[in-house]
Amino acid sequence: MAFTLDELVGRFGGVVIGDGACRITGLAPLDQAGPEHLSFLANPKYLSQVETTRAAAVLITASELEKLSPDLAQRGRNFLVAANPYAYFARVAQRFVALAQPAQPAGRHPSAVIDATARVADSAYIGPNVVVEAGAVIGERVQLDAQVFIGRGVTLEDDVHLFPKVTVYHGCRIGARTQIHAGAVIGADGFGFAPDFTRDGGEWVKIPQVGTVQIGVDVDIGANTTIDRGAMADTVIEACVKIDNLVQIGHNCRIGAYTVIAGCTGIAGSTTLGRHCMIGGAVGIGGHLTLADRVTVAGKSSVTKSLTKAGVYASTFPAIESADWNRNAVLMRNLDKMRARLKQLEAALEATPR
Amino acid sequence: MAFTLDELVGRFGGVVIGDGACRITGLAPLDQAGPEHLSFLANPKYLSQVETTRAAAVLITASELEKLSPDLAQRGRNFLVAANPYAYFARVAQRFVALAQPAQPAGRHPSAVIDATARVADSAYIGPNVVVEAGAVIGERVQLDAQVFIGRGVTLEDDVHLFPKVTVYHGCRIGARTQIHAGAVIGADGFGFAPDFTRDGGEWVKIPQVGTVQIGVDVDIGANTTIDRGAMADTVIEACVKIDNLVQIGHNCRIGAYTVIAGCTGIAGSTTLGRHCMIGGAVGIGGHLTLADRVTVAGKSSVTKSLTKAGVYASTFPAIESADWNRNAVLMRNLDKMRARLKQLEAALEATPR
Amino acid sequence: MAFTLDELVGRFGGVVIGDGACRITGLAPLDQAGPEHLSFLANPKYLSQVETTRAAAVLITASELEKLSPDLAQRGRNFLVAANPYAYFARVAQRFVALAQPAQPAGRHPSAVIDATARVADSAYIGPNVVVEAGAVIGERVQLDAQVFIGRGVTLEDDVHLFPKVTVYHGCRIGARTQIHAGAVIGADGFGFAPDFTRDGGEWVKIPQVGTVQIGVDVDIGANTTIDRGAMADTVIEACVKIDNLVQIGHNCRIGAYTVIAGCTGIAGSTTLGRHCMIGGAVGIGGHLTLADRVTVAGKSSVTKSLTKAGVYASTFPAIESADWNRNAVLMRNLDKMRARLKQLEAALEATPR
Repeated sequence: MAFTLDELVGRFGGVVIGDGACRITGLAPLDQAGPEHLSFLANPKYLSQVETTRAAAVLITASELEKLSPDLAQRGRNFLVAANPYAYFARVAQRFVALAQPAQPAGRHPSAVIDATARVADSAYIGPNVVVEAGAVIGERVQLDAQVFIGRGVTLEDDVHLFPKVTVYHGCRIGARTQIHAGAVIGADGFGFAPDFTRDGGEWVKIPQVGTVQIGVDVDIGANTTIDRGAMADTVIEACVKIDNLVQIGHNCRIGAYTVIAGCTGIAGSTTLGRHCMIGGAVGIGGHLTLADRVTVAGKSSVTKSLTKAGVYASTFPAIESADWNRNAVLMRNLDKMRARLKQLEAALEATPR
Repeated sequence: MAFTLDELVGRFGGVVIGDGACRITGLAPLDQAGPEHLSFLANPKYLSQVETTRAAAVLITASELEKLSPDLAQRGRNFLVAANPYAYFARVAQRFVALAQPAQPAGRHPSAVIDATARVADSAYIGPNVVVEAGAVIGERVQLDAQVFIGRGVTLEDDVHLFPKVTVYHGCRIGARTQIHAGAVIGADGFGFAPDFTRDGGEWVKIPQVGTVQIGVDVDIGANTTIDRGAMADTVIEACVKIDNLVQIGHNCRIGAYTVIAGCTGIAGSTTLGRHCMIGGAVGIGGHLTLADRVTVAGKSSVTKSLTKAGVYASTFPAIESADWNRNAVLMRNLDKMRARLKQLEAALEATPR
Repeated sequence: MAFTLDELVGRFGGVVIGDGACRITGLAPLDQAGPEHLSFLANPKYLSQVETTRAAAVLITASELEKLSPDLAQRGRNFLVAANPYAYFARVAQRFVALAQPAQPAGRHPSAVIDATARVADSAYIGPNVVVEAGAVIGERVQLDAQVFIGRGVTLEDDVHLFPKVTVYHGCRIGARTQIHAGAVIGADGFGFAPDFTRDGGEWVKIPQVGTVQIGVDVDIGANTTIDRGAMADTVIEACVKIDNLVQIGHNCRIGAYTVIAGCTGIAGSTTLGRHCMIGGAVGIGGHLTLADRVTVAGKSSVTKSLTKAGVYASTFPAIESADWNRNAVLMRNLDKMRARLKQLEAALEATPR
């Protein structure tokens, strides 16, 4: 399996500087590439590696290329000039993978348990021990890997791929081309209980969760992530959202299109994230909040109020040597006293004759 | 499916102000309700919506009702007066759901793998690809959804409902009416290893985890949550505890009755939580601690010492613009120096003649 | 099932002080032990319990034994003196468990779906509803519990034990004697997308994740933990690493041998941890960092820079009463102003005649 640079340009655009007939058989980072590899310069700080790499060709922007010594191309280095080398690289890599790993052929494994009332496209693949309940609709070329569970009335649009052991509860809908990784749970009950206690006892009364989860097209969801169904309305994940592993999204949340959420983050119920947000790993976002479009939150931060302006937000301390940390951290709870002493000093100094 | 207000009062209590024959076909929030909906006022700040809602009737407390203009009832608005409108609403909603969604009929899916020595009540439902190992006891009307795993010697009391892909390891016991959502793992080994290292090497020696998990009645557990088995004694979850998604509870913990734990929280081993605690999302609680009854911990906080008094505890900073945050956060590690300078100033001022 | 102290010494070493013929039928903590139990003193603060325990014998170090009153042995208390009583205890406990719980006999459950091209050792056990895909290699005495998924080309070395519902994606390798608990996902795609946006729109372009996960020998991995496959190179978990529940390890990480990671911790991509690190619960470690050997990080801390020296690091505040916390936390964001005021005071005082 190989492509010439000219073939890549024909498919993905860009301009060749050097030998368009140069053959590429794979991709690699600059420092690991061999003489048949295509590499890429995504970060200007690795520019010097472009001089030394053994790669057959390097994806690069026009402006970075200008910084290189002009004789590099003469010395046999080929370039593929593109506006976004990293995205270009990703598309070429996808192409190599698609060819190396032919699509799952359509069919239903005999061990799959598919309700007679489910509508499954002939072009879909239903793997071993998959369970599809009544009334589910499975679109064209959908791939359900082993041990997936599809509840009653679920709709999976065309080209959805669910990896092993994904669970989709009843009534949820998943948009075209969306991929969900192993163990993710879509549509479990939101966490809603009404307290009904008196001095003599009482109970937590469960609020029935009768909404669903509606997931848009081109969404990616990581392994063991959980997205709860809505209480009365739906939980909504808009198109092109990317969610990492072990993320929790509460009931009635809405996540705006193109937003990215890194691993271990939790978002409490009824919170709305705008479009193009970037939420770091292990962030906690409270319930009933609204984050504007293009809000970025640093990893491990806590969001307890709505963030109404685009921007970068943070509330994390980097770990330092614990003796240093502990000595200072105990003072944190006396900041108010330190401030009071400051004020007193200021007043005393004010009163001091000079 | 419809109820009159009089029928609701007959079943759930309360008092009708207005037309007891008024028919309710569903429930909705005040601002979304239509003319056959029952709505509710749970939060006084929405009182004005009671004036404008299109709902047929509104659940309300007597004291809130008094604040409304007295002619509302004349103008055709009906009220259902109850001590706890939100809990009342939840119970009515449960009733609608129960009628709309008939109970799973008893039976065993032919693909289920049930050991011959397991005792399964005839009224139980065992879904597709469920595995039940030797000696398990499955009570009346238990519902095991697809792909559940029940280890040897597990006891599930009456009316337990395990959603798809719940895993219960050997020897654990789950109380009546408890519900556990998809992907939760009950009874995996606790995290216990004895270090046995010398200068020349060594190893982590695994401590066998021979306790179980004992879960009380009326517990709810969220998707992909993990509760570890005890090392020598048991891990215990008392009655009516409510646990959200992606929560980790370590070996030998005891969680007191009625306590609520929000998503992404982790509790290390051998920690005891009292009754009626409320633990926010993404909280971390250290090992070998004791939290008193009615301890509330704000989301994202860290508990590193026992909390022996009821109350609300916190240790979280809200995210702010990261430039502001970073400028201040670096000073955190010099608080001790700031305090020393303060002290010096105080001493110097003291020594200054006035 | 019972052992004499002499038998234990024959198998595990150590020295008996007292009656070597004393019979042990089980193990228990000092305060719960009965007259046929072996107990242990792991923490010197429980020394007084050694005087009062009902245990038949106590595992203890020579130096702790010296602190006890010399007539204890005369009064019928037996001791087993060992360099590491806790590790010794663990090994004895393992022995009791191994005898009580005979090994799973080899065989393949008829409901397992095993591709004809997979190579499965005759001594392996393949449980109900397990799925093994093409080209997988399953070593001697491997135990695959119910509902495990093994992707194509996976290699499981001898004596691997995967608990129910573990998922191993294609191409990964798991070393001998490694144990992985229920619901863990090994080898899902790493979280990598190249942004390709202009003013007119765009998309996140998925970076194909073509590396694998390589797990060493004697590793333990907890329930619902996720370890992503590498993007171009592999994610590597070295020998004897111990990982708790609900941990996320990003693509291209390398975790050094003997390192221990507690529950709910997340490690972003391309980060390297040294050997013998100890990472507390709910820690967040950023991407592209390096932690030296023997780095310890306190629970709930955030690591945002490489830690190049062995030592203990922290960045966590313990929860305090929330009124106290909140009053001080708001001042955190004005530390820079407090410092400026301090400076001003110092200058003013300097300028004040004395």
